[in-house]
Amino acid sequence: MKKSIKIVEVGARDGLQNESSMFTVNDRYQLIKKLSQTGLKNIEVGAFVSSKWVPQMEGSKKLVNRVLKDQSSGKLDKKVQFSALVPNVRGMQDALTTEISEIAIFGSCSESFSQKNINCSIDESFNRFYDVVQLAKKNKVRVRGYLSMSFGCPYEGKISQSKVVSLTEKMIAMGVQEVSIGDTIGVGTPKQVISLLRKMEKKVPLKKVAMHFHDTRGTALANVLASLQSGISVFDSSVAGLGGCPYAKGASGNLATEDLVYMLDGMGLKCGVDVDGLVEIHKWLRSKIDHPLPSHVGRSGRPGIPVL
Amino acid sequence: MKKSIKIVEVGARDGLQNESSMFTVNDRYQLIKKLSQTGLKNIEVGAFVSSKWVPQMEGSKKLVNRVLKDQSSGKLDKKVQFSALVPNVRGMQDALTTEISEIAIFGSCSESFSQKNINCSIDESFNRFYDVVQLAKKNKVRVRGYLSMSFGCPYEGKISQSKVVSLTEKMIAMGVQEVSIGDTIGVGTPKQVISLLRKMEKKVPLKKVAMHFHDTRGTALANVLASLQSGISVFDSSVAGLGGCPYAKGASGNLATEDLVYMLDGMGLKCGVDVDGLVEIHKWLRSKIDHPLPSHVGRSGRPGIPVL
Repeated sequence: MKKSIKIVEVGARDGLQNESSMFTVNDRYQLIKKLSQTGLKNIEVGAFVSSKWVPQMEGSKKLVNRVLKDQSSGKLDKKVQFSALVPNVRGMQDALTTEISEIAIFGSCSESFSQKNINCSIDESFNRFYDVVQLAKKNKVRVRGYLSMSFGCPYEGKISQSKVVSLTEKMIAMGVQEVSIGDTIGVGTPKQVISLLRKMEKKVPLKKVAMHFHDTRGTALANVLASLQSGISVFDSSVAGLGGCPYAKGASGNLATEDLVYMLDGMGLKCGVDVDGLVEIHKWLRSKIDHPLPSHVGRSGRPGIPVL
Repeated sequence: MKKSIKIVEVGARDGLQNESSMFTVNDRYQLIKKLSQTGLKNIEVGAFVSSKWVPQMEGSKKLVNRVLKDQSSGKLDKKVQFSALVPNVRGMQDALTTEISEIAIFGSCSESFSQKNINCSIDESFNRFYDVVQLAKKNKVRVRGYLSMSFGCPYEGKISQSKVVSLTEKMIAMGVQEVSIGDTIGVGTPKQVISLLRKMEKKVPLKKVAMHFHDTRGTALANVLASLQSGISVFDSSVAGLGGCPYAKGASGNLATEDLVYMLDGMGLKCGVDVDGLVEIHKWLRSKIDHPLPSHVGRSGRPGIPVL
């Protein structure tokens, strides 16, 4: 296992985007500021998407500008890599009016989900990504890629592992620096993780692969363990488990950052993040979100340091 | 990894005992009947304790008698091993007035918790166990042992792993057939599990060891995975995660049986339990318990078979 783990905090984008509670740009800024103070070094800030489609991300440009201005003046930690989601060339042009130095693209391993989520086939989406990545490269912007539905799809059921591997290869060949393999509906189990990563490492350097688990069926940390044992050292997670209500029908939710950090700490793996700081953010978020948040450690605290 | 896994269902005893909602003896019977119909082959029914101390277990003798009568007449699956908790000789004498063929004793790895929970030192508790086990042996009753606080204690913090191993050895030497190692407050992480089991296997055959995890910090299934990889094939769990409210302060709760079965199924490990049947029991329990139940799969269902 790698001794040092990178965590990509997706709560302020992937998380909030899937919440019905609306956050103001200022609230989102406060969240990002608090996250950066816990030691997190990779934080997704927002998305350059139409607010018609994703109202939760309205004002992302303003937010990115404020975050980067405060970072350059030293109000926010200079060592944090902030990033934003970009769905297409238009979004990329928008992103390029800011100083953002990392963007993320979002593809799917499921043809049906691609059609329903971004209204085009996987091939068409990769053509779009190509243009976005070219623009990014020209402007020295780092690109991260998401691949959703990598362990199963609500429309198609099983997803072929060789498809996941070939789409990862395709993104990397394009110039994407890190591909995040998402279990979007939280169906994966450790055996599946190990089997996928064995196929993956034959084609792709695992240091370019991140894993993105959902705790929908309680397996997120077991899947993290299987990934760690398979050589993965980058994980996405969302503070408090933002992005899913545990009591909604077909409940879904990102792995909570504090749960991930708790387990890594317990295993002596370094991620540089203060778990108690995350628990404080969980407490702050409780008053702003219309349902209980799914994080375990956020509710129970560390042993000896319970949540009050 | 062992291909075949034994699950000990503790919801009707350990689970209900830690719930404030009171179940009638008939409700408890219905729960046990439903559990036996899912394919579970080891079910803890109740406890021969004073109802002054544990009101939730009042009427356990009546319940055990009804369960065993219906089993012998074929109304309940004859292959199920039913068991009951016995705290002392008086409880054992009570148990022996029934046809119960397995009992369980409950000890602790923490001196402070032993004092607070059962009002005596660990040594004194083991003296009591000795008398109970002798009575059990004489009457050909199988004995299971619990060791609580094996991964940490709310009063003492860290617990020495060699103490856990030596108490396990002591129980087995006494004649206990299977010792369940409990992470009662849900603080353990996989590295700790692996390290404990490496020490354990030098002293005790691992087939006599069961693991009992709580999902308080989201690590239960990761700890199960680490245990499976270390050679363990017996796990305790509680249907729906009975025994802890996820939104209480210092939230605690047994690993939910449906979460465990979902992961084992996904890994191709056989336990013979129908996960959809467990989800149905979760639905039935929701109307009887005064808080949302912590199970993940109970809320989300299997992919393609959501909870309605």
